[in-house]
Amino acid sequence: MKEKISKREAIFYSHKMAQLSKALWKAIEKDWQDWIKPFQLNINEHHILWIAYHLKGASISEISKYGVMHVSTAFNFSKKMEERGLLQFSKRENDKRNTYVELTDPGIELLEATLNEYNPEDNSVLRGVMPMTEMYGKLPEFLDLSALIKEIYGDEYIEILERSLENIEEEPLVQQPTDIEDYKKKSRSS
Amino acid sequence: MKEKISKREAIFYSHKMAQLSKALWKAIEKDWQDWIKPFQLNINEHHILWIAYHLKGASISEISKYGVMHVSTAFNFSKKMEERGLLQFSKRENDKRNTYVELTDPGIELLEATLNEYNPEDNSVLRGVMPMTEMYGKLPEFLDLSALIKEIYGDEYIEILERSLENIEEEPLVQQPTDIEDYKKKSRSS
Repeated sequence: MKEKISKREAIFYSHKMAQLSKALWKAIEKDWQDWIKPFQLNINEHHILWIAYHLKGASISEISKYGVMHVSTAFNFSKKMEERGLLQFSKRENDKRNTYVELTDPGIELLEATLNEYNPEDNSVLRGVMPMTEMYGKLPEFLDLSALIKEIYGDEYIEILERSLENIEEEPLVQQPTDIEDYKKKSRSS
Repeated sequence: MKEKISKREAIFYSHKMAQLSKALWKAIEKDWQDWIKPFQLNINEHHILWIAYHLKGASISEISKYGVMHVSTAFNFSKKMEERGLLQFSKRENDKRNTYVELTDPGIELLEATLNEYNPEDNSVLRGVMPMTEMYGKLPEFLDLSALIKEIYGDEYIEILERSLENIEEEPLVQQPTDIEDYKKKSRSS
């Protein structure tokens, strides 16, 4: 690395990435907060519900890793939601060491209610990618960003991400105004 | 937007962007914290010094906008650093309404000391882009990410970013390797 990139270039580059990354995350964070505010959830809580829902139960360490939050944050917010009756802790037969989190029926209902409430029009990222989507004819894929995250967090992070996204495609979780069958056909043929 | 993208696809896409963006920012945040920890600064303080340094003085609202932090955060941390003698507040003749922040000599020294201490080898992003850099023959530019931030934050955000980056290229700021122990002593005594 040293041979190819000067220290100045490295500072320049990493500062630019820091600015872009902070700006993107703060915009996403704000939209996320606005979206789930009516449900008396904070982002960490919603993220935990989301992960446990899509992975059909998740260990605290999976939640911590995939949600990019401290183990203690994952545990404490899970505990608070257990007290609200939204999820329950359990041990698994084949893995006595880890604590698993599973959504209760009210937890599933609440998460699905947030998804039904989701409005793409309120989403800065979706609005922001529209000019590129028109230009490319499809949503931009940010492949370099995915590749970078894979390098930093390892294959497992991207695998869990893809696993949870597959579940979004499979499950009939959002009854919505648009024609889903139509979308699935397009999705399969692409 | 509604015509082209189903709600399911929108949730899928924005969740993926949220995960990638959170992961990237958390990695950058951690590296940033580790980098400046020896200088008794937090990220917000360092970011304020950085912005005021590169813009050769900046208003609180510029710092807030460009640093993607609340106006009150920008003001409170600036105030704390004023008390440490690292920066000073002023009004400008042609703009009596805004409060400007300028680095003092010790502030400039401190910021330059952090830049001298910067080690590209400790940076997850720089390590993470190396395979792409080898593949492309240059650092990946993340043009889609820049385009997205421009859409969300407006041209001005990117202009200020580019202005501050030009200054990194122009100024001979990273030259002499400073003695970090020496600086730490000064910092403690201040």
